[in-house]
Amino acid sequence: MLQSKLFTKTRKEAPKDEVAKNAQLLVRGGFVHKEMAGVYSYLPLGLRVLRKLENIIREEMNKAGGVELLMPSLHPKENWEKTGRWDTMDDLYKLEDKSGKEMALGATHEEIIVPLLQKFISSYRDLPLYLYQIQNKFRMELRAKSGILRGREFLMKDLYSFHKDEKDMDNYYEKMKTHYKNIFNTAGIGEQTYITFASGGSFSKYSHEFQTVTDAGEDIIFLCEKCGIAVNKELVSTASSGGDSMSCPDCGNKDLVKKKAIEVGNIFPLKTKYSEAFDLKFIDENKEQKHIIMGCYGIGLGRLMGTIVEVHNDEKGIVWPESVAPFQAHLVEIKSGKAEVAGEAERLYTALQKSGIEVLYDDREDARAGEKFADSDLIGIPWRIVVSEKTVAGGEFELKNRKTGDVMMVSEEELVRELKN
Amino acid sequence: MLQSKLFTKTRKEAPKDEVAKNAQLLVRGGFVHKEMAGVYSYLPLGLRVLRKLENIIREEMNKAGGVELLMPSLHPKENWEKTGRWDTMDDLYKLEDKSGKEMALGATHEEIIVPLLQKFISSYRDLPLYLYQIQNKFRMELRAKSGILRGREFLMKDLYSFHKDEKDMDNYYEKMKTHYKNIFNTAGIGEQTYITFASGGSFSKYSHEFQTVTDAGEDIIFLCEKCGIAVNKELVSTASSGGDSMSCPDCGNKDLVKKKAIEVGNIFPLKTKYSEAFDLKFIDENKEQKHIIMGCYGIGLGRLMGTIVEVHNDEKGIVWPESVAPFQAHLVEIKSGKAEVAGEAERLYTALQKSGIEVLYDDREDARAGEKFADSDLIGIPWRIVVSEKTVAGGEFELKNRKTGDVMMVSEEELVRELKN
Repeated sequence: MLQSKLFTKTRKEAPKDEVAKNAQLLVRGGFVHKEMAGVYSYLPLGLRVLRKLENIIREEMNKAGGVELLMPSLHPKENWEKTGRWDTMDDLYKLEDKSGKEMALGATHEEIIVPLLQKFISSYRDLPLYLYQIQNKFRMELRAKSGILRGREFLMKDLYSFHKDEKDMDNYYEKMKTHYKNIFNTAGIGEQTYITFASGGSFSKYSHEFQTVTDAGEDIIFLCEKCGIAVNKELVSTASSGGDSMSCPDCGNKDLVKKKAIEVGNIFPLKTKYSEAFDLKFIDENKEQKHIIMGCYGIGLGRLMGTIVEVHNDEKGIVWPESVAPFQAHLVEIKSGKAEVAGEAERLYTALQKSGIEVLYDDREDARAGEKFADSDLIGIPWRIVVSEKTVAGGEFELKNRKTGDVMMVSEEELVRELKN
Repeated sequence: MLQSKLFTKTRKEAPKDEVAKNAQLLVRGGFVHKEMAGVYSYLPLGLRVLRKLENIIREEMNKAGGVELLMPSLHPKENWEKTGRWDTMDDLYKLEDKSGKEMALGATHEEIIVPLLQKFISSYRDLPLYLYQIQNKFRMELRAKSGILRGREFLMKDLYSFHKDEKDMDNYYEKMKTHYKNIFNTAGIGEQTYITFASGGSFSKYSHEFQTVTDAGEDIIFLCEKCGIAVNKELVSTASSGGDSMSCPDCGNKDLVKKKAIEVGNIFPLKTKYSEAFDLKFIDENKEQKHIIMGCYGIGLGRLMGTIVEVHNDEKGIVWPESVAPFQAHLVEIKSGKAEVAGEAERLYTALQKSGIEVLYDDREDARAGEKFADSDLIGIPWRIVVSEKTVAGGEFELKNRKTGDVMMVSEEELVRELKN
């Protein structure tokens, strides 16, 4: 893409109303634009990152046997009354139409998917079933001060699993832990992300969160450094109030380390909570009617993007992992007034695209070298290629790794080989 | 995809609350599920069609120089007050948060994109600019009886163009007509779709609609069969009330033919209506401040999908054009109890997928041949491949064209060649 066609411009200073580092960097780099507290537009660069995350998640959910569908945001009040959450869910947006019919904006989708399945599922032969969507959620967050970590409107992947018995659900639930680890590994935060024991509510011993350790975290977790798993604050408080000290659920280690973290995903054994609310049953092998056992599995895409930025940045800007970067390479042309420099930059831009490499080409006429380099560091594309009078004279290109800062002079062949790696 | 993993089931009868043919067929085939009037879930088959349409539109918008972004659904009231539409737009959904702050659900996005651009645009050098998104819209439609033709929540592509003068906007507007024709051609309704002159409101002589002629249409257009363009009812009424009879705006032909049609797209010269509301200005070549000239260009994806179904169906079901079909081929295995038939069907399924062909494989154990054929006709995938005891014995496959009904016996090589065409 030509940078001259990218209407966004970088900013030297973060807007005063953004206190979170992820929002400061993403706004300064032109990835997102704040419309109001907790509500952001994704600008072209930000949308590209969002789509990369979407594809990483979709691919992994398909590997987990997931079938994709798309449910709406407008939900009938009746459905939310059936689960009791019309009154109990604090952050539910409610609205009504001209006839006075009340509706909710989808904060989650159990209230839609469970009655939907009633139309299609009747037998154990229809199970198990894993359905997911990547769709907007609306939640009236009080604390919307964490940039895109805590949105009032945000894209979420939510998968719902349906099983004939708890054993089948437990197996899938364990399998999903691995798929979630794969997603966070691919997205570049695997090293900092721990599976964390959380409360299972009134109907299950545990649920699990995936917590990414960073100083920007609003959550507190207690990490067992032996096992690489953690326990969340809520469980620890429950244990302490009962007079116990919390220990690692795996190895019993009592020497847990307190860390700040961001919850980037969670998985929850719903069991029959929602199938009972909507009386979603199936007929088992012995012709008995039973309630379907459910699990649910969520990842917020905006929050994941914000977390990646919190983990991967330096004093100059964002340092995107290659898998989620908006482009693989940032081709920076240093304007010299000489036609051969522009010609060489354009030629390389075309050649790289033909090789299947995603390139942002800084072709701006009116920006100086220092400005272009600062913008490139702020935007944080993994590889920077410089084409200047000097590189053209030398017959090579300057290739810089954003993360390590290493600079190499390379031939075009070496350049393509490095980027295709 | 394995049909046994597709949780949806077809229905022989349409639900009583669906009067529109598109909704009847799409519900019966398991493409969509109605949540309430004007609000649908897209089930796996329907979502696949929606994604095909999304990609056709995205590709054409990129060809038109469009840059994609993603704006939110929650809009601040202030923005809608600035354009006056908080009070005048009848079908705007309004809601408020706990603090009493009022918001609108995005019915269109001029109220977001114009103030957003104010942050980035200052000079004629920043123009022209073409920004688009594919995003949910919310409109409190009174008549939500047309299935997915008229949704209260629906996916829409909206592009906004920004120009330094009217001439530049006019040129782009004309160019966009061609891009729109390309989209409707690719989506298989080009033949029935006419560019239609409509009112330009108070600030422009004309706007243009793209109207697809079908008996299911809720609009009336007057078609000039010589030029292949049309005039909408509103313009004809205006002319008649002034004592004129309406004639073709191109050739003057007064012999216009009255047709029912569905509006599948519209393009509108907004001129300075919204740039004035938000005082969006740029500095021109002569250092004068001027309001930016705008155009807007919309296509509703659900409506487009519904229109394709209204145009392409027969007594047995939907007849998808190849470009938008959920799968290219429907592989139907006729269960015979013989392992070699199942083995051959599975082998072909894998081979076709390896050749890059999208296949729905009806591997259901408990469905009889007649049921499988009826489902296949209802779902409407362009090519049906039958694997049965008979075809396995003959060493060939039965290939049927859904549209023409033609049946051929073909070798695997011929099959792949036909499908890759």
